[in-house]
Amino acid sequence: MLSKVTVFAPATVANVGSAFDVLGFAVAHPGDTVECVRTDSGTVRLLGIEGDGGRLPLDPTRNTSAVSVIAFLGELRRHDPKKYESVGIDLHLNKGLPIGSGLGSSSASAVAAVVAANELLGAPLTRLELLPFAMEGERVACGTAHADNVGPCLLGGFVLIRSYDPLDVVALPTPSSAWVVVITPSVEVRTEDARKILRRSIPLTDAISQWGNVAALIAAIYRDDVALMGRALEDKVIEPARAALIPGFYEAKTAALAAGALGCSISGSGPSVFALAASQQIADTVGAAVVAAFDSLSISATMHTSQINSVGATVLKQE
Amino acid sequence: MLSKVTVFAPATVANVGSAFDVLGFAVAHPGDTVECVRTDSGTVRLLGIEGDGGRLPLDPTRNTSAVSVIAFLGELRRHDPKKYESVGIDLHLNKGLPIGSGLGSSSASAVAAVVAANELLGAPLTRLELLPFAMEGERVACGTAHADNVGPCLLGGFVLIRSYDPLDVVALPTPSSAWVVVITPSVEVRTEDARKILRRSIPLTDAISQWGNVAALIAAIYRDDVALMGRALEDKVIEPARAALIPGFYEAKTAALAAGALGCSISGSGPSVFALAASQQIADTVGAAVVAAFDSLSISATMHTSQINSVGATVLKQE
Repeated sequence: MLSKVTVFAPATVANVGSAFDVLGFAVAHPGDTVECVRTDSGTVRLLGIEGDGGRLPLDPTRNTSAVSVIAFLGELRRHDPKKYESVGIDLHLNKGLPIGSGLGSSSASAVAAVVAANELLGAPLTRLELLPFAMEGERVACGTAHADNVGPCLLGGFVLIRSYDPLDVVALPTPSSAWVVVITPSVEVRTEDARKILRRSIPLTDAISQWGNVAALIAAIYRDDVALMGRALEDKVIEPARAALIPGFYEAKTAALAAGALGCSISGSGPSVFALAASQQIADTVGAAVVAAFDSLSISATMHTSQINSVGATVLKQE
Repeated sequence: MLSKVTVFAPATVANVGSAFDVLGFAVAHPGDTVECVRTDSGTVRLLGIEGDGGRLPLDPTRNTSAVSVIAFLGELRRHDPKKYESVGIDLHLNKGLPIGSGLGSSSASAVAAVVAANELLGAPLTRLELLPFAMEGERVACGTAHADNVGPCLLGGFVLIRSYDPLDVVALPTPSSAWVVVITPSVEVRTEDARKILRRSIPLTDAISQWGNVAALIAAIYRDDVALMGRALEDKVIEPARAALIPGFYEAKTAALAAGALGCSISGSGPSVFALAASQQIADTVGAAVVAAFDSLSISATMHTSQINSVGATVLKQE
């Protein structure tokens, strides 16, 4: 029987250009790490958080990582009370992801925790079966149980959420030709503001253009066609509204495209932006150009380049 | 040198459920047939039409088939005036498709004509290169140069129109597991009315639900997953509006689903409906159930079952 499991869960890019609210993908890094230790306390405890600058609650009913594990353990107990009644799990969370950056920070914590807990208990559930519990973590962090970050964080690659009621999740293939650079400027966008700024209705013509692009994006993922993927990111609905919340967004995007990016848009609800490129070298050049564009506006920014992460959360250590 | 070419072009289903205005697919039958005869008259003439009940114009500037060939020949002449100046083409159109039925009748005529003309002249252009000329035919028939019928009619399978400006067309794979039944009730829907009945703006939440379904539809096509394809047809935007123009639509849809259809929606702007099924036998049963549903409302209807047509227009004869 395992006593301790450590899991890394990566950053994810949701609201992929045109595919607002329905698609997300995982990158290689940065990410969060959670260590789960088995106890016989019968409870879930969050013993420590590093890397959050003291911003996250240790209260297990309010922290996304512990909430996910509580929901997961609750489900196991419903099915086999005797076996799981006295099982307790102590968590330790190491935040590698900046909070509120649009990179799925809360999802990474939830997924790392629930994957580690599942491994610790002998993997009674599949990755896909863990999704609803990670979504519970998302609910406590964001107010709604979105799956477009936790999906790809858990399963890797591109994950599509067709519907929530019933939950209908489609894991897409991982295009190997695409390189991604994610750039995080040091400005804050409140998810709440990012939601509020959206119009509640949109012109039908824009909606049609958007779902034409979404359709092409999915086709491009299957074809492993990074040029089509870039064209299909074109977003007439969300990006024009949310760009207003990110100082320097258009300068950044212009710099990205000029440096060879095949497409560029907002990651999640921002302020991070992401760009697609056909090689690691171009992605690095694009990232540097975007960082420079922010820098010229006196906004510092960090960048991370990787391919699409095809595996999602990974077990780092088990004892 | 060829003197006469005969081409069959099939019915197509556009506005595929959720994928309004961006996707269409071809079925095996019914369809239109066009015979092109080479002359040295230097002009394009439409010598006869059968099967239209006298409803279509013989004037070559007003009939979709001749308009397409005129546009095609015009392009060839721009590139090589000497070679094509004296070339003339006489057309004969045999309508197998009911007019105004939502099965891409005008597209089939345009595509059959332009493919026949191209073959007749030694195939100077590829199928994809013929698309703009067939779209010109569509423009004269419908007022706008839509490509979601002519695309699949020309290329076969599922064809996605990502954008019109610039024209960006993606040919998708043909799912071999899907069977389609198309049912045409004897009622008329004017395309103009079908356009007018649509709201000019839609709730963002409906738009998101729609592009989640469109994304899943494209994934289902690549996965050859007819069950997902059926779920992804769900259309919250267009179908609820247009159903009002088709007497018996909901009775027909209910009958289709009860008989085993995996999804059912309006073909084009109607009145035809289409349903997807996992086998020919189920598709036939579904078609019969829908015909019976219309019949119980005193509306006669015809049905055609086939797989997705992977090749599009086909040359029947060349001399």
